[in-house]
Amino acid sequence: MAKELKNFTKRSDNYSQWYNELVAKADLAEQSAVRGCMVIKPYGYAIWEKMQRQLDDMFKATGHQNAYFPLLIPKSFLSREADHVEGFAKECAVVTHYRLKNDPEGNGVVVDPAARLEEELIIRPTSETIIWNTYKNWIHSYRDLPILVNQWANVFRWEMRTRMFLRTAEFLWQEGHTAHATREEAEKESRKMLDVYADFAQNYMAVPVIKGVKTPSERFAGAIDTFTIEAMMQDGKALQSGTSHFLGQNFAKAFDVTFMNRENKPEYVWATSWGVSTRLMGALIMTHSDDNGLVLPPALAPVQVVIVPIYKNEEGLKEISAKVEPIVDEFRRRGISVKYDDADNKRPGFKFADYEVKGVPVRLAIGQRDIEEGTVEVMRRDTLEKETYPIEGIVDHVAAELDNIQERLFERALEFRNRRTIIVDSYEEFKVKIEDGVFILAHWDGTPETEAKIKEETKATIRCIPFEGDTTPGVCMVTGKPSERRVLFARSY
Amino acid sequence: MAKELKNFTKRSDNYSQWYNELVAKADLAEQSAVRGCMVIKPYGYAIWEKMQRQLDDMFKATGHQNAYFPLLIPKSFLSREADHVEGFAKECAVVTHYRLKNDPEGNGVVVDPAARLEEELIIRPTSETIIWNTYKNWIHSYRDLPILVNQWANVFRWEMRTRMFLRTAEFLWQEGHTAHATREEAEKESRKMLDVYADFAQNYMAVPVIKGVKTPSERFAGAIDTFTIEAMMQDGKALQSGTSHFLGQNFAKAFDVTFMNRENKPEYVWATSWGVSTRLMGALIMTHSDDNGLVLPPALAPVQVVIVPIYKNEEGLKEISAKVEPIVDEFRRRGISVKYDDADNKRPGFKFADYEVKGVPVRLAIGQRDIEEGTVEVMRRDTLEKETYPIEGIVDHVAAELDNIQERLFERALEFRNRRTIIVDSYEEFKVKIEDGVFILAHWDGTPETEAKIKEETKATIRCIPFEGDTTPGVCMVTGKPSERRVLFARSY
Repeated sequence: MAKELKNFTKRSDNYSQWYNELVAKADLAEQSAVRGCMVIKPYGYAIWEKMQRQLDDMFKATGHQNAYFPLLIPKSFLSREADHVEGFAKECAVVTHYRLKNDPEGNGVVVDPAARLEEELIIRPTSETIIWNTYKNWIHSYRDLPILVNQWANVFRWEMRTRMFLRTAEFLWQEGHTAHATREEAEKESRKMLDVYADFAQNYMAVPVIKGVKTPSERFAGAIDTFTIEAMMQDGKALQSGTSHFLGQNFAKAFDVTFMNRENKPEYVWATSWGVSTRLMGALIMTHSDDNGLVLPPALAPVQVVIVPIYKNEEGLKEISAKVEPIVDEFRRRGISVKYDDADNKRPGFKFADYEVKGVPVRLAIGQRDIEEGTVEVMRRDTLEKETYPIEGIVDHVAAELDNIQERLFERALEFRNRRTIIVDSYEEFKVKIEDGVFILAHWDGTPETEAKIKEETKATIRCIPFEGDTTPGVCMVTGKPSERRVLFARSY
Repeated sequence: MAKELKNFTKRSDNYSQWYNELVAKADLAEQSAVRGCMVIKPYGYAIWEKMQRQLDDMFKATGHQNAYFPLLIPKSFLSREADHVEGFAKECAVVTHYRLKNDPEGNGVVVDPAARLEEELIIRPTSETIIWNTYKNWIHSYRDLPILVNQWANVFRWEMRTRMFLRTAEFLWQEGHTAHATREEAEKESRKMLDVYADFAQNYMAVPVIKGVKTPSERFAGAIDTFTIEAMMQDGKALQSGTSHFLGQNFAKAFDVTFMNRENKPEYVWATSWGVSTRLMGALIMTHSDDNGLVLPPALAPVQVVIVPIYKNEEGLKEISAKVEPIVDEFRRRGISVKYDDADNKRPGFKFADYEVKGVPVRLAIGQRDIEEGTVEVMRRDTLEKETYPIEGIVDHVAAELDNIQERLFERALEFRNRRTIIVDSYEEFKVKIEDGVFILAHWDGTPETEAKIKEETKATIRCIPFEGDTTPGVCMVTGKPSERRVLFARSY
């Protein structure tokens, strides 16, 4: 059983299969009976809850409040913003009826044709339309602004090809929707929330990200600007991990939301929206995990330390438990989540394998001999290195190890990304190098035509125009036309 | 403006209108553009978040974990449990298509007839079916049991007549779904979770509840037994505030979920489910609030203490703020949520009215003269009584007041309910007394026919057969047939 748990496909053999097996074996999620929708299992959900709690604290610290808007959106709302409907109408779930009835032929229940809705309702793919329709009633004067609201919700986009966490028809997310009196303030808000996402990704998920702006063809449907954080997975592909949109006055105009400014003149309201989703689970898993299973940064691990007793009999277990109890108490006092696994229906070897697959950052093992010698075995999940350490002072030691693991995971991921980020000047070289799974900084002439050609021929897209890095102008690698600066190309999830 | 805010319909004039106005003026929720669906506004949602956090802690303390299951349920799943489909098929939202397309006639978007689903999907009205279909794969042996899972989710039931929080088409809730090896263990779980709900209602919401079991005709569709907590609102009507169901093996049989017991023989799994919803917001509002607005128990108030400075000029405000700052810090250290409202665009009178309507439990006001005399004005929202108190020691004093408010609200609600709970022995008297808005303990012959007749003729239903209270047998007030014990009748929400 222990062996079977750890019997993974290697990343180097088949990265995609490794990921699928990991999600299953670490008990994170599974396919449901509904196409494209997953069941998030308790262990996977516990990680998501840690993410939610931290993000929610950060949103509140930046002045946002939560609220809740309807799941269903009248079909006509989607059409109000021209780009928005193009982006979302093609992949939505449509509610047409409000009742079932017994099948006259006796085969369970059927849709009652008499219960057809006058106007169909769409399960929200995102909530700009229903929210701006609501804001219309909330906003009259500049005194009502800004509105800084966030919603934790499920959304639905009918996807043809789905993958656990990365792309599912239903997913969980948060969507911030803010309203402002000035363009400047809204732009500042959209950049601020991108910074919050980057802070969260780097300092809690230990995932280094590149901040930048999307090209027009990769923008959110209805946005003036879409800002993004892009992370590199271990196969060198990019994962868009969070986006923040400056929406200008597009939705205010679509839903006729104006306010009286300080000069008592009506103006359209300025808007932002920003979101991260359960997709972050995919980023977390793929950035750190290895051929032995999940590797979790301590800041987001539901269990940070597990203690496994190794004993021969009831008497031995009692002795170990007496020694472990005060240690558990001290971990808790320090705010470190700890589990003492003295279950007697599983062998230590199985427990070791299980916690390894589940990515618990530090494992302590205490046997009879440790008790005699006043020691404990410490294993770090990230390095799989074991050491024997005195029981005296073990909590301080583990606390320091947890900090070190958190830092090291980030450093390791950053080094990996840096090693795999290259500068390319010719399209020929680009086509060769992109096959290696790399981020490429290259010059582009700024046209959607060239962007589309590159995508078509190499499957690589412009992930973003980075905020930082080399801003020297040059010439487009494809057309030779002038380029303002290098942009970031990659294949992506 | 201050006057307008407080200009309520009185409870005694029109209780229902009072409630609607209160929900609007306290900024709790509003109707959305989608029939029967509400928008929960930030202040209302903040109260719900406090409830969620407390309940979630209580579920985790009793060994439960959160997970997430799909929003959509295949239509055929509903039919698997015979009673269940009868209870839920009539009021569900049906997804039939997965795409919109541009209207060929140019009127926005229309449903794409080519994108019809093979099998329709239902927006979950409750999740027993999709969850038991999932549990089938999780449960093989007695070692896999119990499963103690909870889900926080939105659900949808097509309701014809809706009221904010009390009955909405979409609502937010939690639904616990547990699986057990024995009947005894499942029954114990369903009773345990009812106790958790009662604990939460009484000790956090300050809402006294009567625990009991539902009659067969009031049971959850698919349950063997439904346990309930019933609260009395200020109009004497009952509000079912939480239910816990012992489901027997019904769903295990419907979804063929068996386990190998300790004797290695297959058995069907035993189940429970239990839920509370945003309906609790309605119970909270209606139990404590008065003609001046919302009254909140301190345990669930997003802001427990508000401090309003009363000043003539910038200089005066500075002086007050300097005095208030350390007090704010001390409240925070004590874990008391406090807001210092020094906004200069609203007059103190408006602020007073606003916080009164919003039910902030304690309001402090500090003026220039208070600074000179070392005092502060303290107002309790529940009694609307003001007193002047020394600034020295104010935090201790307010902390004690908060405890006292929490207790007093419960006591007041309990006294109200006791005063309005009567014993009736004749059906004639019952028909008269029920008009007064009371809980009636009366004898009933145990038949659904008599129950239906009473409901038909008086609009009163059996809220529950209480666990506690008088268990003396008697004769049915309607038929004169034997009655095992008095049961609880009331009109209800």
